[in-house]
Amino acid sequence: MIPFKELIDFEKAKEIIIEKTWEMKRVEEVDVTEACGRVLAEDIKAGFDIPGFSRAAMDGYAVIASDTFGANQRNPVKLRIMGKIFAGEIARREVKKGECMQIATGAPLPEGSDAVVMVENTSLEGEEVKIFKPVYPGANVTPPDEDVKKGEMVLRKGDILNPSKIGVLAALGMRKVRVYEKPKVHLYPTGREIVSPGEKKEYGKIYDINSYTLATLLKKEGASVEIHPIVDDEKEAIEKCIDEARGDYIIFSGGSSVGERDIMADVVKKRGEIFFHGIALKPGKPTIFGRVGNALIFGMPGYPTSCLTNAYVLLLPSIKKMARLPLKVERKEAMLAEKIVSTIGRHQIYPVRVEQGKAYPVFKESGAITSLSEATGYIEIPANVEYLEEGSQVLVNYF
Amino acid sequence: MIPFKELIDFEKAKEIIIEKTWEMKRVEEVDVTEACGRVLAEDIKAGFDIPGFSRAAMDGYAVIASDTFGANQRNPVKLRIMGKIFAGEIARREVKKGECMQIATGAPLPEGSDAVVMVENTSLEGEEVKIFKPVYPGANVTPPDEDVKKGEMVLRKGDILNPSKIGVLAALGMRKVRVYEKPKVHLYPTGREIVSPGEKKEYGKIYDINSYTLATLLKKEGASVEIHPIVDDEKEAIEKCIDEARGDYIIFSGGSSVGERDIMADVVKKRGEIFFHGIALKPGKPTIFGRVGNALIFGMPGYPTSCLTNAYVLLLPSIKKMARLPLKVERKEAMLAEKIVSTIGRHQIYPVRVEQGKAYPVFKESGAITSLSEATGYIEIPANVEYLEEGSQVLVNYF
Repeated sequence: MIPFKELIDFEKAKEIIIEKTWEMKRVEEVDVTEACGRVLAEDIKAGFDIPGFSRAAMDGYAVIASDTFGANQRNPVKLRIMGKIFAGEIARREVKKGECMQIATGAPLPEGSDAVVMVENTSLEGEEVKIFKPVYPGANVTPPDEDVKKGEMVLRKGDILNPSKIGVLAALGMRKVRVYEKPKVHLYPTGREIVSPGEKKEYGKIYDINSYTLATLLKKEGASVEIHPIVDDEKEAIEKCIDEARGDYIIFSGGSSVGERDIMADVVKKRGEIFFHGIALKPGKPTIFGRVGNALIFGMPGYPTSCLTNAYVLLLPSIKKMARLPLKVERKEAMLAEKIVSTIGRHQIYPVRVEQGKAYPVFKESGAITSLSEATGYIEIPANVEYLEEGSQVLVNYF
Repeated sequence: MIPFKELIDFEKAKEIIIEKTWEMKRVEEVDVTEACGRVLAEDIKAGFDIPGFSRAAMDGYAVIASDTFGANQRNPVKLRIMGKIFAGEIARREVKKGECMQIATGAPLPEGSDAVVMVENTSLEGEEVKIFKPVYPGANVTPPDEDVKKGEMVLRKGDILNPSKIGVLAALGMRKVRVYEKPKVHLYPTGREIVSPGEKKEYGKIYDINSYTLATLLKKEGASVEIHPIVDDEKEAIEKCIDEARGDYIIFSGGSSVGERDIMADVVKKRGEIFFHGIALKPGKPTIFGRVGNALIFGMPGYPTSCLTNAYVLLLPSIKKMARLPLKVERKEAMLAEKIVSTIGRHQIYPVRVEQGKAYPVFKESGAITSLSEATGYIEIPANVEYLEEGSQVLVNYF
């Protein structure tokens, strides 16, 4: 049981994590109805014009514009109604001089006609209609390429799909779309003291919390997550996980004692590389970051609060970069309701509950999950700050 | 083909929608790993203390505190080491006067002992350890109910589950949790002019966009959505949809012409009640809102931009209320890059693209889906405003 030798700065740790994280290269095809929030892996060019045909922009009459020239209230032009076209239909005949067709918004303009007279400027008389106002060619007509021109690039590789962008894919008739795969995360709860929820718990054991907080957070933020059975924090068991996992991340949550953390660090060092082990961060000192083969390895602290706050500040930026998604943190100012004493030399993450613009510290101890569930977010206290006075302005990062 | 008789105010329309929307009553049980973002349908009280046993908060030695009284650097107290306890283990014997046990963080305190001496304040000597600093009873020990006391209410009905709240459920050993059901939405694309994406499209037809933009938006915001096959905008077809749908919402997207909208309004009136038909809103004038049996009915405009912006401003507040979720719209100020002329008497929703703090109008025509896919959000222009000058401050609602 040896204490940490070297702690690296929090800012340095974040830099290393981003530097060592690559962007996802693998691509998969998904149904457009399941593609919201996914990142487009290809440029999308329109294969055809949209709408693809001239259509009426108004309910009215499809006419030959020149037929209406000179029409006014006192001397309307009379045109013979040759039929009616609804949206989705095609006129059975063309419009000839002196003729028109009743047309509904969205219906394709019949051959021969080149404008639509709004119903408001007409009067129906048997099989004829009186036109009270002339129209120019193209009036109240949407041209075939109004929305999208064939060949136009409508979406770009890297775009994050949202409802309107998925609408564009639908407009192009696409049912499937190529997106970047989600980073694949293997979660290994470690430690003999933990039991999976739903199972019987003996004296001296606690339920596994970290797998559930981490899985929930990472899935919500764009990763695909698999929770594995609990592993012993022994060399052989940890080696087996690393050798068997096929994914982008192998995350161990647990190893609360110094000895256990050393076992994990030894295994990662033996199989790959350790980028750091130990951060000047509170809570979160024992966090391990490394790489084995094609997977990044995180050894997260065992205490639930430490584990989850570390996931927000260290793990999430990496996952977001790999997923090619922006890291969005909602931040709002608040007034600190109570003095907080911090630890000089360690950057501190402090959960707070915000009520009516005031931030109340809710930290109990790093083992307490309730201190996080009651928190609306966290504040950060830099390593060189000894305490924050009651009443000082703080920037709350919302969960 | 008759024009609208009475348009109601946009604000009034929003009021009616909220007033007529109820909160979800149905409850379902879901796996905790799938519960993120769901609304808790029950209070959660702790069935046991957490952690449930006294445990070491540090790596060190479990001792009887009184044995250490008087110890200092020059006169250390020597205790006999009777074994080693890791987290998850239980000591095989109790600690007696003059004895101690090596203990790892998180391990249950052995019977007889009442404190933990940190490893830093000790020195190992064969089977004995020298203690250089006294501890009080309870030092470096987490009591059995430190995190949660048995019977304590840890989560409340109505809480929205997030990673830390799901951590609390896991801590209580729960695999399943009772949440409110998601509002069930039946989407009916209507109109003979539309074709489902993936199918062959004939001249004069366009692909169905609205089902995909609406389904994506509503699923993302907490509804469960079923897209039905395209229905003819005829009385019998629409009646059949209303009679067969079993859900909280029946949404028709389409009916772009006045005639079609009247058919829909007639059916809703015949089977139930119409709350309004026609809003002084641009785009979105033709929107219908009513109720048939236990379902709210929305007749959304047929044009993609109109349909989706109306979904953001009218449909979403209703869905959110029913789902018991807060309606969160991210809003930021921007400077209008170009003058916008609006329509007096109609509240206008205008899509804009924000770049470097400037808002550029991106509206082409209400049929154009691309005007939305290029937009970062929309601004609202009240009914009594004729135009907005270039350079004026506008509040952008982000998609």
